[in-house]
Amino acid sequence: MKTVAKSEGGKDESDLRAQGEEMHALCRELFPICRSLTGDGVRRTLNIIQRQLPQLQIHEVPSGTKCFDWTIPPEWNIRDAYILDPAGRKIVDFADSNLHVVGYSTPVDRDIGLEELQQHLHSLPDMPGAIPYVTSYYKERWGFCLTHRQREQLKPGTYRVKIDSTLAPGSLTYADLVLPGKLRQEILLSTYVCHPSLGNNELSGPAVATFLAKHIAGLAERTYTYRFVFVPETIGSIVYLSKHLDHLKSSVIAGFNITCIGDERCYSYLPSRDGKTLSDRVAKHVLRHTDPDYVAYTFLDRGSDERQYCAPGVDLPVATVMRSKYGTYPEYHTSLDDLSLVTATGLAGGLQALIRCVEAVEHCRTYKVQVLGEPQMGRRGLYSTLGTRGVEDAVRIRMDLLAYCDGRRDLVEIAETIGVPVWELAPYVAELLSHGLIAEVESGSVT
Amino acid sequence: MKTVAKSEGGKDESDLRAQGEEMHALCRELFPICRSLTGDGVRRTLNIIQRQLPQLQIHEVPSGTKCFDWTIPPEWNIRDAYILDPAGRKIVDFADSNLHVVGYSTPVDRDIGLEELQQHLHSLPDMPGAIPYVTSYYKERWGFCLTHRQREQLKPGTYRVKIDSTLAPGSLTYADLVLPGKLRQEILLSTYVCHPSLGNNELSGPAVATFLAKHIAGLAERTYTYRFVFVPETIGSIVYLSKHLDHLKSSVIAGFNITCIGDERCYSYLPSRDGKTLSDRVAKHVLRHTDPDYVAYTFLDRGSDERQYCAPGVDLPVATVMRSKYGTYPEYHTSLDDLSLVTATGLAGGLQALIRCVEAVEHCRTYKVQVLGEPQMGRRGLYSTLGTRGVEDAVRIRMDLLAYCDGRRDLVEIAETIGVPVWELAPYVAELLSHGLIAEVESGSVT
Amino acid sequence: MKTVAKSEGGKDESDLRAQGEEMHALCRELFPICRSLTGDGVRRTLNIIQRQLPQLQIHEVPSGTKCFDWTIPPEWNIRDAYILDPAGRKIVDFADSNLHVVGYSTPVDRDIGLEELQQHLHSLPDMPGAIPYVTSYYKERWGFCLTHRQREQLKPGTYRVKIDSTLAPGSLTYADLVLPGKLRQEILLSTYVCHPSLGNNELSGPAVATFLAKHIAGLAERTYTYRFVFVPETIGSIVYLSKHLDHLKSSVIAGFNITCIGDERCYSYLPSRDGKTLSDRVAKHVLRHTDPDYVAYTFLDRGSDERQYCAPGVDLPVATVMRSKYGTYPEYHTSLDDLSLVTATGLAGGLQALIRCVEAVEHCRTYKVQVLGEPQMGRRGLYSTLGTRGVEDAVRIRMDLLAYCDGRRDLVEIAETIGVPVWELAPYVAELLSHGLIAEVESGSVT
Repeated sequence: MKTVAKSEGGKDESDLRAQGEEMHALCRELFPICRSLTGDGVRRTLNIIQRQLPQLQIHEVPSGTKCFDWTIPPEWNIRDAYILDPAGRKIVDFADSNLHVVGYSTPVDRDIGLEELQQHLHSLPDMPGAIPYVTSYYKERWGFCLTHRQREQLKPGTYRVKIDSTLAPGSLTYADLVLPGKLRQEILLSTYVCHPSLGNNELSGPAVATFLAKHIAGLAERTYTYRFVFVPETIGSIVYLSKHLDHLKSSVIAGFNITCIGDERCYSYLPSRDGKTLSDRVAKHVLRHTDPDYVAYTFLDRGSDERQYCAPGVDLPVATVMRSKYGTYPEYHTSLDDLSLVTATGLAGGLQALIRCVEAVEHCRTYKVQVLGEPQMGRRGLYSTLGTRGVEDAVRIRMDLLAYCDGRRDLVEIAETIGVPVWELAPYVAELLSHGLIAEVESGSVT
Repeated sequence: MKTVAKSEGGKDESDLRAQGEEMHALCRELFPICRSLTGDGVRRTLNIIQRQLPQLQIHEVPSGTKCFDWTIPPEWNIRDAYILDPAGRKIVDFADSNLHVVGYSTPVDRDIGLEELQQHLHSLPDMPGAIPYVTSYYKERWGFCLTHRQREQLKPGTYRVKIDSTLAPGSLTYADLVLPGKLRQEILLSTYVCHPSLGNNELSGPAVATFLAKHIAGLAERTYTYRFVFVPETIGSIVYLSKHLDHLKSSVIAGFNITCIGDERCYSYLPSRDGKTLSDRVAKHVLRHTDPDYVAYTFLDRGSDERQYCAPGVDLPVATVMRSKYGTYPEYHTSLDDLSLVTATGLAGGLQALIRCVEAVEHCRTYKVQVLGEPQMGRRGLYSTLGTRGVEDAVRIRMDLLAYCDGRRDLVEIAETIGVPVWELAPYVAELLSHGLIAEVESGSVT
Repeated sequence: MKTVAKSEGGKDESDLRAQGEEMHALCRELFPICRSLTGDGVRRTLNIIQRQLPQLQIHEVPSGTKCFDWTIPPEWNIRDAYILDPAGRKIVDFADSNLHVVGYSTPVDRDIGLEELQQHLHSLPDMPGAIPYVTSYYKERWGFCLTHRQREQLKPGTYRVKIDSTLAPGSLTYADLVLPGKLRQEILLSTYVCHPSLGNNELSGPAVATFLAKHIAGLAERTYTYRFVFVPETIGSIVYLSKHLDHLKSSVIAGFNITCIGDERCYSYLPSRDGKTLSDRVAKHVLRHTDPDYVAYTFLDRGSDERQYCAPGVDLPVATVMRSKYGTYPEYHTSLDDLSLVTATGLAGGLQALIRCVEAVEHCRTYKVQVLGEPQMGRRGLYSTLGTRGVEDAVRIRMDLLAYCDGRRDLVEIAETIGVPVWELAPYVAELLSHGLIAEVESGSVT
């Protein structure tokens, strides 16, 4: 009996390990940059990613532009910020950590008493060693963030606060990359670039998205067209949708929001609003076979760009595959969400899960058996010729495929029924196709 | 950020407590009257209710009238009844309790030996202190009910039995009340008046129905038209259906049978035959948020007028919200089901649950978000402007409404999804409507 | 109140016990015959069955005939086979057990060393006292099966192996029997005849099928037409389908594969591929009321002719009701699966379950209540006339039938809802029909 090469799906172990290291290196390069909704930090970040993905297109949308219900805010840039204590010592310094300044802080440069200063300070009493991450995009404010430990040592007196920022007409920056496939139907992959020095809830997303794009770009063949989107969260996806909604609604058959995908603690899944799209089915299938203990959230737990992609009237089939979800781990939105939390291994596992997801979408075709009754597998060398007790796994997979390929169930549904990962079914599908025992059924594909 | 007045649904505590007392007083007034399928007891009961609800219409249907498969029986009236023991002492007296006489007993006035008398007596060996409730509507009989304790003391000898009743052509009496709303679609509320001195399984129903009608009549505005029906059980609802079936089938969008709604032991729910009507969804939603331990029965446990309202070919969306269901509590259909079992607090809780049910039906509209993507809540003062960890409940409710108001899910479905009672959502819906962020979707309403 | 004769479904106890003995006797008569895919053993078996079922039609299909993807193989017959040890003693003898020869063994007659002989021997190290059952239908081989205990005693030396078999053009033999009913819609009952001396996984099937056919043939009235099929497994059902597919697809409304139905250990069920056909609903309903601990398998556990009957494009509604399923009991496919494992009691229980299944299909009509609201049962003598606590089972069944006979739910669905076996409902249905309270709804029957 012929044998079929076993497929593990995704990348092989050593290749994956190497890419984990490269992704972590990219994170380290991007870490110090002060990103926000707009500004040079985003531009610098996208330029660095463009080195990995030369076809990446970078776009600018001027401040004041209307996008659906929103208006692009002024562009924010910051060069320096600090607090001098009454003795003139620099006690809080933007150069140490860009988390020290409230995002979108207006400029300030003056003396100030401790009591008034306190109203501009943010710290976390329950995490006294962490600097919190705070922003005020749509209301003009200024402020500093610091550890609670440091804040408690502040003594009465006159402090000097200085934020050398500008909040002025400019533009919002985002990027995209389209990798054409045989079909014009698209798989959408979206991530965000808008947080300063944060690890899991920022850099893991663009790092994994970049290496997923490199992987897809390197494939000999793609059934579907792939669209990668790098945007500031919320307003960026709204901008993107406002420019491409009709196209996306008619083209996207599956999509994944890429965020919080770099630590090692768990895998998790957040459904689309609909909950039953191909993306949802694929995400759950992949995670079940990647980590049976993965955490399944509901759409009530949403918090990233699926809020826009799945909004009523937008309704794109976008699910989210994560490691530790935003808002659920203690370091979230603090200086402790750094590149020790995000690891090469964590990033590699996230990349592997997403590669398996897009492979599963590629595999998820519908086939129909071409004979009535079971085919005679023996004369094709596809069956054990000696009828004894015990039937081998390979024979069982072939016969199960032949039993369920009825022109209605797609391959992910069959994989779920059989309890075998779709990537392990793929070589058997190829074999049965080559024997003419099954044929693909066109399901109204857009070609 | 603006705040929204929190709604508890239904009536406020002190108002409710007062109405509980008034309902109990009404029960006490109605308790001594000897009601049956027909007769002056029903008329007197409806006249007393009419004092509370002046618009109540009282109708008479002559004996012999055909209604679907049934014929209106002769009218039964009773003035007096007793048993004299061999010594001439009145040992069983209708004047003490109208339960002492089998309902619809034919007249009798003669001497009788103990042995023969026993064949006309009903008692409960397992509840020796209770008088059972027995009727014989459709077969001519006479009989007395008494406690088993008393029965056991009867000695051989000649007894005198006297029942001064009449069973003669007359009519069946019922009443209804229609309170028009903006729409001609109706909410049906039905209760029964046909048991003599019984509490939970009789008077709690008309008492709560009366005060629910008073509440609805007092509303400044009603979306739907309300129809209250007071009928003798079974034949009364059959009479009502036979006169109004076409109208009811084309108008009723939800309905509730009001019975066994006055004790304090539990809340319970009995579904419509279909089990998935708006009434069912609303009843379960209200009870889940009123008493998470409410008892859910199936349609197999039916026993009241839902048998007619949900019969094949009738198929009205009628569910039942109760306190302790008929047939499930030990006092049921005995003299122990009295006004100590039914309490002001029990009646008030039942009224509150039903008010919440009709409010939920009123709230259960379908809305659609009017912007693509999430709206910018900040510039409308509907969002916290400082992005910190933790999002307030109010913001969460607003954002969830905006996520699920997609023109397909109605508000009860959204309330179930979000896990918030629909009455708490209502003020947020009003707020979002006033901002033009959502709009009602007409779902083929009958106007 | 009139009473209704209680129905237990199926046959009564003493009749059933007698038939169990007759079925076991038939098994004993068929046991020694060496059946295979083709050959005289099958013919002799079908001739014996024909004595019980004179209308049985026996058919021959020539070797080389194409049937769907398959070709009828040469016919195999065997007269004798043995191994002589170096001392000339007959140590393995076909005359002792036909399991000693690998099915479809090519002829052989020569001396052979032990080492080479070993390559033609089959035994079970983990069941040292059992002779395994081995076949090689589609690859030419020869071989012997023996107990592992015997095999371990073989000493080096020259053995004589002799198999007096022929593998030559001939035909495949199968049989069928059609018992016409009032409707041309059919119930299909299929079993297989192709294993040599095996009990539960061979003879229980044709024995029970034969007696089921005798039972059906003896009925005064049949709503449906019954088709019994006796075929060699796999290729036989493929042959049958290739000849009758269009007819079967347009006629068969329910079907059962009859196999492994003679031991006493358990009842079990294997669904059709669809899983929701009438056969599946009926099988589960019958088993739930026959043995609440019955084992429910999935279609992934399939292994008999349901593989062909339920193949994509064939899609007949065929489910399987068994005692201990093939492949799940230790004696399966060994000499221990004999007529001590299969018992009269086991066969009788299997027959009873299948009779109940076909009765349930016959009962599974759809009715509609003919009055609006509940009918007045009292004046028809169908209701207790004295309203007391406690309602009798009979009244409850009548009222439940009247509540659920809505022209949409069929009787098996109603039986499941009410929790009463459909055979207990049948007399009440007859009673309600006779009163004109319900009427059958035609569901597009083929007449």
